Parts: sequence; C-alpha cells; structure tokens
Amino acid sequence: MYFFSDNATPICPEVMAAIAAADHEDHGYDGDAWSARLDGAFSALFETPVRALWLSTGTAANSIALATLCPPYGGVLCHEEAHIVVDECGAPGFFTHGATLMPLPGAGAKLTPEAVTERLKTIRPDVHQVPARAISITNATEYGLGYAPDEVAALGEVAKAHGLSVHMDGARFANAVAHRGCAPADLTWRAGVDALSFGCVKNGGMIGEALLFFGAQADARAAEATRWRKRSGHLMSKGRYLAAQILAMVEGDLWLRNARAANGAAQALAEGATGRLMHPVEANELFVRLTAAQAAQLRAQGFGFYDWGEGAARLVTNWSQDAASVAPLAQALKALDDG
Amino acid sequence: MYFFSDNATPICPEVMAAIAAADHEDHGYDGDAWSARLDGAFSALFETPVRALWLSTGTAANSIALATLCPPYGGVLCHEEAHIVVDECGAPGFFTHGATLMPLPGAGAKLTPEAVTERLKTIRPDVHQVPARAISITNATEYGLGYAPDEVAALGEVAKAHGLSVHMDGARFANAVAHRGCAPADLTWRAGVDALSFGCVKNGGMIGEALLFFGAQADARAAEATRWRKRSGHLMSKGRYLAAQILAMVEGDLWLRNARAANGAAQALAEGATGRLMHPVEANELFVRLTAAQAAQLRAQGFGFYDWGEGAARLVTNWSQDAASVAPLAQALKALDDG
Amino acid sequence: MYFFSDNATPICPEVMAAIAAADHEDHGYDGDAWSARLDGAFSALFETPVRALWLSTGTAANSIALATLCPPYGGVLCHEEAHIVVDECGAPGFFTHGATLMPLPGAGAKLTPEAVTERLKTIRPDVHQVPARAISITNATEYGLGYAPDEVAALGEVAKAHGLSVHMDGARFANAVAHRGCAPADLTWRAGVDALSFGCVKNGGMIGEALLFFGAQADARAAEATRWRKRSGHLMSKGRYLAAQILAMVEGDLWLRNARAANGAAQALAEGATGRLMHPVEANELFVRLTAAQAAQLRAQGFGFYDWGEGAARLVTNWSQDAASVAPLAQALKALDDG
Amino acid sequence: MYFFSDNATPICPEVMAAIAAADHEDHGYDGDAWSARLDGAFSALFETPVRALWLSTGTAANSIALATLCPPYGGVLCHEEAHIVVDECGAPGFFTHGATLMPLPGAGAKLTPEAVTERLKTIRPDVHQVPARAISITNATEYGLGYAPDEVAALGEVAKAHGLSVHMDGARFANAVAHRGCAPADLTWRAGVDALSFGCVKNGGMIGEALLFFGAQADARAAEATRWRKRSGHLMSKGRYLAAQILAMVEGDLWLRNARAANGAAQALAEGATGRLMHPVEANELFVRLTAAQAAQLRAQGFGFYDWGEGAARLVTNWSQDAASVAPLAQALKALDDG
Repeated sequence: MYFFSDNATPICPEVMAAIAAADHEDHGYDGDAWSARLDGAFSALFETPVRALWLSTGTAANSIALATLCPPYGGVLCHEEAHIVVDECGAPGFFTHGATLMPLPGAGAKLTPEAVTERLKTIRPDVHQVPARAISITNATEYGLGYAPDEVAALGEVAKAHGLSVHMDGARFANAVAHRGCAPADLTWRAGVDALSFGCVKNGGMIGEALLFFGAQADARAAEATRWRKRSGHLMSKGRYLAAQILAMVEGDLWLRNARAANGAAQALAEGATGRLMHPVEANELFVRLTAAQAAQLRAQGFGFYDWGEGAARLVTNWSQDAASVAPLAQALKALDDG
Repeated sequence: MYFFSDNATPICPEVMAAIAAADHEDHGYDGDAWSARLDGAFSALFETPVRALWLSTGTAANSIALATLCPPYGGVLCHEEAHIVVDECGAPGFFTHGATLMPLPGAGAKLTPEAVTERLKTIRPDVHQVPARAISITNATEYGLGYAPDEVAALGEVAKAHGLSVHMDGARFANAVAHRGCAPADLTWRAGVDALSFGCVKNGGMIGEALLFFGAQADARAAEATRWRKRSGHLMSKGRYLAAQILAMVEGDLWLRNARAANGAAQALAEGATGRLMHPVEANELFVRLTAAQAAQLRAQGFGFYDWGEGAARLVTNWSQDAASVAPLAQALKALDDG
Repeated sequence: MYFFSDNATPICPEVMAAIAAADHEDHGYDGDAWSARLDGAFSALFETPVRALWLSTGTAANSIALATLCPPYGGVLCHEEAHIVVDECGAPGFFTHGATLMPLPGAGAKLTPEAVTERLKTIRPDVHQVPARAISITNATEYGLGYAPDEVAALGEVAKAHGLSVHMDGARFANAVAHRGCAPADLTWRAGVDALSFGCVKNGGMIGEALLFFGAQADARAAEATRWRKRSGHLMSKGRYLAAQILAMVEGDLWLRNARAANGAAQALAEGATGRLMHPVEANELFVRLTAAQAAQLRAQGFGFYDWGEGAARLVTNWSQDAASVAPLAQALKALDDG
Repeated sequence: MYFFSDNATPICPEVMAAIAAADHEDHGYDGDAWSARLDGAFSALFETPVRALWLSTGTAANSIALATLCPPYGGVLCHEEAHIVVDECGAPGFFTHGATLMPLPGAGAKLTPEAVTERLKTIRPDVHQVPARAISITNATEYGLGYAPDEVAALGEVAKAHGLSVHMDGARFANAVAHRGCAPADLTWRAGVDALSFGCVKNGGMIGEALLFFGAQADARAAEATRWRKRSGHLMSKGRYLAAQILAMVEGDLWLRNARAANGAAQALAEGATGRLMHPVEANELFVRLTAAQAAQLRAQGFGFYDWGEGAARLVTNWSQDAASVAPLAQALKALDDG
C-alpha cells in the first residue's frame, strides 16, 4: 500500500466519468460549455462572484497568481518551506520575471502575522530594496496543518495594512476545509485572500487545477491571468477535459467527500502513531518519527513512503483510502517496538 | 459536421483506452513506467537515439524547444505566419526571455533557403544587432503544405553553414509524414532538424505532445528542457496519463492511421473543391475561395468552419473522419454555384 | 574630419564645466541637488509638469519607457528601421520581459497613421494574439527626418482611439526641434506623447540622457521607472554628474544652440550634395548616393564616414561643427565627378 | 566632514585628468583606443590573461557576472547581507531571468565553506529544486572585512568540488588588497574566482567599474557579457570616458594609493573608537556602537554619518581622506563619554 504522495493516485471514478462525458466535439481552448460553467460553480461554492481559470498544475496556478499580484521588482512573503520556495524549481521567479521570494520561519510551515510584521520592518522604503507586495500561504500547509479562519484573517489584516495582496496555495485546500468544517469563504476572501490555487489533482483528478480570483480586482486579474496562461503554454486546446474534471469535483460535494476520506485515513494512522507525530494531523499528511530500523520494518510489510530527513518519515493518505483501508498500517505503526 | 479545427475533436478510442490502462498508482511526475518508455519508442520510430519529453501543449513544446536552442539575445528565423509568431501570445518571448522572432515571407507559409540567406545577410555581426541562432519551420505548414525531405535538408544546410539550430513545429507532423510517405527520420534529423514538437492532440489525443531532441546535443538539451518544463509549471504530477497517450500513438501506427484518415478526408474535399483551392492540399487543411453567399449556403447545410479573411474559408479535417464521412461536404462544395 | 556619427564627439565645453561644477561631495544616487532640479527644468521647457529621470544611454531610456507603457504580453508598433528594432540587441525585449516589437514600413523611417491603423486591423482581439499597447516613433528619424506637430498628433489620435500609449525616441530630439522651430511641447505631450527619451549625449554630453513622462500617469510611470532604473543597474551612485550635464543643456538654450550648429553643418553639406540626397535633410544626418570610387575619393581627402549599403553613404554632423567648418566637405561633394 | 559613504565623493584629480585627456573624437562604444587597453592593463595587474569590460555601476557588473555564471533555473549561494541580496532591488533576478539567490548566514558578512557545504546538502538533485550553480562573495565585505587568500581558496575548493562558479563583488576590492598587502591574483583567480566586479567609483572614479573574467572560460563569458551589456542599455556610446577612468586607476598604482588613504583614515578612526568596534577594520568602513546621544554629539560637531540600526553607526572613509584629515573625528570618538 502506497503512502508516498497523493499526487500520483489513480483518478476517482466520478472524474473519469466526467472526462468521458466531455468526450465529444466542442469549441477549443476555453470556449466550450464546460469551461463556461467554472465561474458559476465556484461563485456558488464561495458565496461571492469568483473568476476561475483551469490550469494543469499547481505550480502554474501558484505562479500565475503571483504574477498577477506582484511586479518583477516586488517581493512575496512566504514560509521558508513553502512549495513555491522549495519545490517549483524557481517557477515563481520565471512567471513574475524575477520577483523575490522572502522566506520566513514558522512552526508547521505556517506563516504568522508576527513573522510578517517583523520582516516588513526590515525593508527600507527606498528604491534599493525589494518592496513586499504579496503574502503567499499554503493551506493545508506543507506539514499538513490547517489555518483557522481567524488565523488567515489576521494575516489578511496585516496585508491590508501594508498594501499587500494575499495568495493561498490550496493544493490541499479541500483537506483543509474538510478538517476545519467551515465555509470555503471563511478561509479565503472573507479573510482577505485575493487569489486561491484550488487543487483537484491530489484529490482524485487527472489534470486540472483551478485558479480563483476574489474581490474588486478579480476581473482585471483574471484577464491578466488568461494572458499568462496562453503565454506560458498552458491554454490547452481541449480545455473541456480539464473543466469537466473540476466541475465534477465542485458542482457537487465530491471534493469534500474525497478529502474526508483521505483525512479519515490520516486520522486512523495518527491514532496508530500516537507519540510519534511531529505535527498535529489536520489534513491528509503525517510526519512521524521513525528509526531507520522501524522504517525498514514497515517497508518489509509492503508499506511505501518517503523518509523525511533522518529519523522521520512522511505518510500521505489519499481519496481512495479511508480509515478502514489503512488499518493495516495503523496497526503496524502501533506494533512498532521502540526499544 | 465540424471543420473548424482538428484541435477540438474527441479523443480517439485507442488513446482513451490507454488512459484507462494507466489508471493505477505509479510514481509521480515522469518517474512512472510509461514516461520511461518514451525515449525508446521515439528512438525506434526515428531510427536514432532520441530524447523525448511529454508536454501538454504545442505552444509549450515549441517554446521550450526554442529556449534550448536560442539565447535571450538571439533571434529565430521563421515564417511570418508561423504559429509561434501569430498565435502564441508571445510565448516564445516568454520562454526565451526575450529572444527575437525574425519573420520572413514565403508562399504557403514555407520558409526557403533563399529567404533565410537573404535575411542573414542583413545582420551585421556586431553587438548592436540580434544574431540569428535558430530556424523554426512548421511541417505541415500553417497552410497545410508539407516540406519534402530535400527542402528541409536545404534549410538544414544553410543552418549548419551559419551555426544555427533547427526546430520543427510538428503540430501536424503526422499528417505531413502520412502525405509524404517517407520515413520520419528523413524529414527531421537526417535533414538537419535538432528539435521537433511532435503533435498528438490534433491527431486524436486529449492532452500530450512530445518534444524530441536529436543528435549530439540531445542529452544536454533534454536536461535543460526538463528544467524548463518544471520551471514553467508543465511537469504534471500524473504524467503517466500524458505518456500513455503518446505511447498509444507511436508504439504502433495509430499516429499514421489517424493522420491518413484526416488526410484522406481532406483529399476528398479537395476533389469537391477543384478550382477553389488556394494552396495544394498536402495534409488535413484546405483553404478555399468562397463568396460570403457560398459560405452561408454551406453553413445552412450544417457544415461548420471558419472564414479565412474575405472571400475565403478554412476547412480542417480530423482523425475521426475519412473520405466517405466527409462526402456530403465534398458534394456540397461541388454543387456550389459560382454564377 | 569625421562624419561617422555624432555619438562619439568630444564633450562640449559648457557640459564639461558643469561636470567640474558638480565635483564636490553631495548625496548619492539621485538624492543630490542637481538631480532634484531635473523635474523643474523640464517642466519649464515643456510648459507642463514633467517627471524626469537621468539615464546613461538612449537604449536604457527607450527600454525603460517601453517597460512602463507595455506589458510583457503586449506589442509595440514601430518602424522596421527604428533603433529599438535594429540596433539595441533586443534591449526592449529584455526590459519588457518579452513584449513584441511590431515593425512597420514607412518612407524615411517615419510611421504613418495609415500603417498603424492597417496593422491594428490584423490583430484579433483574442488571447492568442499579442495586443498592441504602445506606439514608438523616433524624432528625428533614423534617416534624419522630422515629424511635424500635426504628424505626431495624427499618430496620437490613432493611439488614443485604440488605447495605446506613445513613446518618442528623441536621441536627436534637439535637432528635430531646432529644425522645426516649434515648441518642444508641440512635438510631444500636446500631440499625445506619453514618454520621451530626450537625448543629450549625441548633442555634446558625455553620459546622460533624460527619460521624461508627461500627463496624468506621469507620476505612476516615473515611480515604476525608478524601480527599473535601479533594477537594471542604471542608478549611478554619483548621479549628480549626469544631472549636471543635462541641466547644462536645458536650463539654458545650449541644447538648441548645439543642435542648430549641427543642423547648419548638415544644410551646408546638403547644398554641396544636391542631386545625391536620398532623404530630405531635416536634422544632422545626410544619406547620399555615392559610388565606391567617389567614396574613396572623399576618404582620400581625409573625410571619415560610413557606407550605407551599396552606392550610398551616411554623413552625420555634430555640435562641434557648423556651416563654415564643414565647407571643405561640402565643396568636395560638389566637385565629385559623376561621369 | 562626511562619513556617509564612499560612493558620493568627488572625483580624484588623476581621474578627472584622464577624462580630460580622453576628450577628443574617437570611435564609439568600446571601439576606442582606451577601451582597447583594458584587457592588457588588467592582465598585467593580475598576472594572467584577463578579459575586462567597463560598466557604469557595480550593480550592473555583479548582475552581468551572475548572468554569465548561472542559468535562470539555478541558484547563487551568497551572504544574506550581501549587496546583491539587500541593495540592488532584485537586479540579479532581472539579469539572470529569475535565478534564485540563496542567502546564508556568516559573521561579518563573510561566507564560510561550512555554511556553503551545509546548504548544498539540503538541495536534492532532482528537477523540483533549484540547483546551486555559483557562489558570490564580497571582498571587502559589507562590514568592511577582508578575506584572506586561503579563505577565498577554501571557498574555491568547495565550488570546484560541486561544479559551481565563483563571483567576487569587489566594489571595495582595492581596499581589501591594500589592507591585505597581497597580490590581486592571490585573492581572485589563484583562489578559484571566475569573475570579479572591480570597483572604481567608490575609490575616486566618476562612472566606471570593470567586470573581469579569468580562466579558460574567460573569452566565452566575456563574449556573453558584451551581449548583456548592450542588451541592458549599458553600452555607452562614449565608452572611452569610462575606460580612461579605469585605466587611470590601474595602469599605475592610483587604485592602491587611494585605497590606502581611505584605509589609513579608517585605522585612525578605529584607534579613536577602541572598545566600540563591532567588526575588525580591514578596509575603509567602521561599524561602531554609539548611543543616540553620542551620535547626536558627534553630529553636533559637524560629522555626517548613517545610523546602523539602534545603538550603532557606520563610518565610511574615502580616497580624499587620510589619517591626518580624519583626526578630528578620531579625537571626538575618543572623547565620547560612555557614562
């Protein structure tokens, strides 16, 4: 059983069905009937007018979002372990034409208003220094923690006070919402978020993430973003196959059902891993302390996962699992001998 | 019946089956079993070691190819109606960091050695002018013409003599090969081509083009290209679904069968449109002279297509058609009254 | 006697004196007393509030102007022989992050409203094509012609009608104004120009051009431009030496006196070259028909100049000359035997 | 008396004389007699073949150096307080098209082999992470410390072992060499440095820094750099005035004499500031602990300088000073009452 990552799972049946349903001739690019429904579907989901674009990867969604929020000479405040810093081979620098990521520390890969405020104080308001123009946070974070609505709102307040825009990398937004049990709006635009990378691929999709813009500037930014999408080679000619996947997720509650399954599996593992957890489990990722011998022991039982530095491992659950199906690993974790 | 474009057709059954066959857990990105087969499949097809990367769009394939062949201060000689010039919203400028497209005239959107040579003469070899570093041609061209192997080779010779690399935009490469009946190698590396955008989407795929590198620098360029792919947000996490589509095309002869079907349909239309053709029909596109009244007449019969300036229209056939299935349009064309 | 170019002449005495006068400690970058006077000096000269930045080259001034007027995915309509197209090694592409220069034909390197309008018609308003966002003209042109105020205004009208900004490359703006005898304002903001590269180096300066912004967006664009200036390494730490040169030019009428001297020399040569002129002489450049033998004959008499293709030559006069001092060449031209 | 910065001092007489001596017509750009002597002058100074380009600012020199040493998807290891990180408004990101600066800690703004090695260990060799490609160090550092030859060599060894290139920001290289008393070669190419930004402006020049390339790739990199120089608008048409300044510095020992004067002044101040020094004084900068009251006291006596955070100040001496001329400040420092 694989716990490497949720990014390589099979496609969930409803999404596959949606692909099949879209399989007839329609207009190219985003001129089709599916793409036309995106704005409406997300506006309903977020209880506010939303402008939505399909994109093929989270990296593209994050980067295009930042390109609309930050000029080339500006900076983006973010966590030092954020995906945009660590795992995108400099894609934000490419799309923003060299804007500066400004990495900050924070427990569990969470950004705090304090860290942001402290960093802002160090920037002289002259032409020699890169001015901060945006904040980017990840929810759920790279360590599987979720922001509470008031935590996002506190960052949103700081942003507003300093004229910064706010981007949220929501590669696992569904898991964050499912765990928190709040309205998607509460974690985003109501808390000051301007742009959201809404992930689907990790949640059962094949190819297709959504980039959402909220608020008064949503139209202008979406117009810019459609230019970036084309200019970066991301405007698929058969875009309806992406739109259909996303709609399958969000026109009903599939996105939440899948996330709940993955989260449930993670909670089951967490119970098995009591005492080993390096972070609270608030989504579908666990970071657990494991000796090399223990890791080997688990692998010998057929469980696949990545080491996470020395003496630790990462376990990622996914939409196709649930508490029951991961019980063998939960038990195996519990049975580990720490002697 | 639609003749708008081959870029919005449904997915051909073999490709859909390949997607289904890939639908189980494997490693992410291009670490899966399907992606691993790409180099081999294309090396067999092209009778030489080939380095192959999947990409999601032709624009991305073209742009990344050019980014590996031309520095930011260099220029790319190409036809003034080439897709990279006219229809990519400046994507080559984005990926190459501002390299200059150098558009040239030429009948049927074909580049000639003479046009290239003349243009090269105008460039002073000093630091004030943009030096040409690459040639990009499209095969089949934007007007549905194919280059003969010796035509490509003649351009290849000019390129070699001036230290230029050669890129071929093969969004409809299959149609070109199917029409010409030659070996893929004869139209590419044997004729001096360094990089090929090998199209699948217009030929029955959903999402997935291949970028191929030939020759002594193939490894180095492919390594660069994998960086650009990630950096531009084009490294899909479930890349196996793209690889599987491409393999379905080229591990057998599906790519040629589909192209032959489309080409056959085009020939059938060409016979119906004798006397109206603005260009020879050497692939799956027809450009025909039509008055507004005639265009309206055809549309009234249920045929969909785009006008192509005044008094002309473009008809594109695709893999799902053949001579028989497009007979109604062929007949309708023949029946048009030119009085 | 040298007629190669006005870009390599010595420094005129008043400018050298200004450099010496600035040679004491002051604040760095543009925080000094000279830099602080630029806005005022140009506002007086142009009879309107102007925002002015010193820069070290015309290429930098042109490129930074375009970077503030055109987004990366936009296009700049310009003459096909414009300096920005032909002689800047792609600098506009570098500063604009890949915006597209859209070269147009036109006699004497002048852009016409008709050429602009025709080109605009070819651009589809969809996301696949690069939208025009700016016009750039050169005054005096690369062939030494000047635009009349109403010619600029006609282009300004077209620009306004299509939402385009207007940039003027004024490397030889002084020569254009001196020839035309009109107010600087009439050739610029009153005619719809948003940004002007105001040349000083060719007119007797050492290092120092001015980039000027007019109109309602001047402040915002100047703020952007100061970022680009720093970010491109153009913010000299001892900026007062540049500012002092520019002020020496424009706080009095030195810029016009120098230009008149150069223009006068050009007119004297033009009289000697009657019958050989390829363009009217409206600034300080002459393009004359000369056989190879005639060119050699002139060179043998000690006159230095560049060939301009076959059978032609370019003669550039400068601030240090006048009608009297170039009389020997005028006479030598007259004396050429066309037999 | 001013101790704000050495970047705003007047021009030293020998440099001004060199400017005057260059003030006659010659070829434009770098085609003149002065520019032609740069390679030779620096080759003699560094006892090895050197390729040298004049540039107008240190920011341009640093950025163009990095653009030749690091691809857009690569990273540059540097100190977190390096000028390229803190004071260039992202210029390296602009010139390198988005390469990543990788800031590291280190006492006195010095980079250590240990810090570099530790950071390199954190980079996975896969396509998701930005690979380090270069190291950039500043000598003298931003805190006025100098690297010993063997300290540079130790970094050079690490670089070589990991395939990294080495850049040195030598805005105050003269001060570093003057303090150390070693051969320029020992601090650069003999220790593994590939490219050096050789500062002149802070050392008595007006406008003009040199970018030097050493080693087997010097020619290729210099050729690239001349493209970047033009493309970034840094190719002055009257380049001889920059070349002449640089030659005045390095064809004799002016660069060392000026640096020794500034260093001597710094040492004199250091003696006055015993007990207050935050860093050893190894060039022409002092960082001293001062209460607000003490700072005010000094300013009341006519000494100008910048605060450096709370309770500290920076004092920079320059070429126009020496131990004798700064004695008043030395004495004033000594006389401060710490009660």
